[in-house]
Amino acid sequence: MILARVVGTVVSSHKPRKMDGIAFLLVEKIDPVTMVGKGDFVVAMDSVGAGPDEIVFYVSGSSARFTPVTEGVPTDCSIVAIVDFIEKNGSFTYRKDQPENG
Amino acid sequence: MILARVVGTVVSSHKPRKMDGIAFLLVEKIDPVTMVGKGDFVVAMDSVGAGPDEIVFYVSGSSARFTPVTEGVPTDCSIVAIVDFIEKNGSFTYRKDQPENG
Amino acid sequence: MILARVVGTVVSSHKPRKMDGIAFLLVEKIDPVTMVGKGDFVVAMDSVGAGPDEIVFYVSGSSARFTPVTEGVPTDCSIVAIVDFIEKNGSFTYRKDQPENG
Amino acid sequence: MILARVVGTVVSSHKPRKMDGIAFLLVEKIDPVTMVGKGDFVVAMDSVGAGPDEIVFYVSGSSARFTPVTEGVPTDCSIVAIVDFIEKNGSFTYRKDQPENG
Amino acid sequence: MILARVVGTVVSSHKPRKMDGIAFLLVEKIDPVTMVGKGDFVVAMDSVGAGPDEIVFYVSGSSARFTPVTEGVPTDCSIVAIVDFIEKNGSFTYRKDQPENG
Repeated sequence: MILARVVGTVVSSHKPRKMDGIAFLLVEKIDPVTMVGKGDFVVAMDSVGAGPDEIVFYVSGSSARFTPVTEGVPTDCSIVAIVDFIEKNGSFTYRKDQPENG
Repeated sequence: MILARVVGTVVSSHKPRKMDGIAFLLVEKIDPVTMVGKGDFVVAMDSVGAGPDEIVFYVSGSSARFTPVTEGVPTDCSIVAIVDFIEKNGSFTYRKDQPENG
Repeated sequence: MILARVVGTVVSSHKPRKMDGIAFLLVEKIDPVTMVGKGDFVVAMDSVGAGPDEIVFYVSGSSARFTPVTEGVPTDCSIVAIVDFIEKNGSFTYRKDQPENG
Repeated sequence: MILARVVGTVVSSHKPRKMDGIAFLLVEKIDPVTMVGKGDFVVAMDSVGAGPDEIVFYVSGSSARFTPVTEGVPTDCSIVAIVDFIEKNGSFTYRKDQPENG
Repeated sequence: MILARVVGTVVSSHKPRKMDGIAFLLVEKIDPVTMVGKGDFVVAMDSVGAGPDEIVFYVSGSSARFTPVTEGVPTDCSIVAIVDFIEKNGSFTYRKDQPENG
């Protein structure tokens, strides 16, 4: 799974019916040490109610169809978790409850 | 899913029968912030009737076989949505109805 | 799917039985605008009778097992089409029937 | 499979139920010759009880769902082995029982 | 499939039972024109009895589970062939029976 920040939305009215009602979020991959965005973006389906600026991780490939929201849906990228904190070598690089990390 | 612009077509008369009648589009990956092409191209099967210059996103891997058009077809890349708009941090980076973004 | 040129063959006498009788071709990825090789090579199973110097595209991942020739075979890369022409923004970047493009 | 070092943990309280009770580890890809980290991080599910600083390898894609711990779970990255040693051209580049390699 | 050279082994005593008795080989991707290693390594399961310095190709993704040795095993990388020779544009870039290419 890859860590990313929710930075926007992508809206489409021409898509398979199975995709109706699922949000497409624009997410930017981040470096989990510095929390800086990498300028590398993907469109991810939301399965957990993620919102703007939240740190999430998404699953790629066939497993993207294994969330309760995305079964049978032609997605290759689904957000599966909103991150509370990231710990590296005993220190936090990110804590959701500390706004300066938002 | 990856955002891309439809820039052309690829035509083949030697391919598996299951692929008959499905358009192969040449798409160029874009940066969704600047909307500039990355010079990185893939061949994608069209499942939504996408046309020249449209911004789309495609699904890779096994999920490319999960559109109504591509079930059971040996594709690893299928266009699943024509994009209406892309919003990043509250601003539009792309709106289909504004020709200058086309 | 990725566009590539057939540049050679790879021969092996130690492989699973399911692979017997299928040609392994050495293919080089190309830039579909300039048609120049990228120096990036993969071994692809042939499902369409592709020959030297032909422009093809191959499918990766599980879909590589969805051609008539490769069902159930442990391949992650199968050539699925010999390209007749590539059109980009209304011009041909490649036409099979024009030898100078060969 | 890719060799990596366990460098931390990622904690989430918003995720699919199927993921409850499985640890998400932050792992850094390494060069198996120098054992130096590459600054490239992924979130991996632990299926073997890996701990801080251990060298492991993880499996990506659909096979990440084929461990006893991760069946049916939407993961695309699962740690499947804690490494005892790495041998290259007859020499050890890593031995778990030699602390200086830890 | 990707061409690589067998350069070592990776040994683990903490892994799923399904993996018992299968060798994990350290392989280095090569350029099939120059036969020089790329410094890019993966851990591959052996399904063909490959040995040190042999040139092989491996299959990635779900197809890695489609060899006789690796069915149902959580692998994403399996060696499926030991290469006898590589021919590019009518010349050999590698012949197993010529030691200087070993």
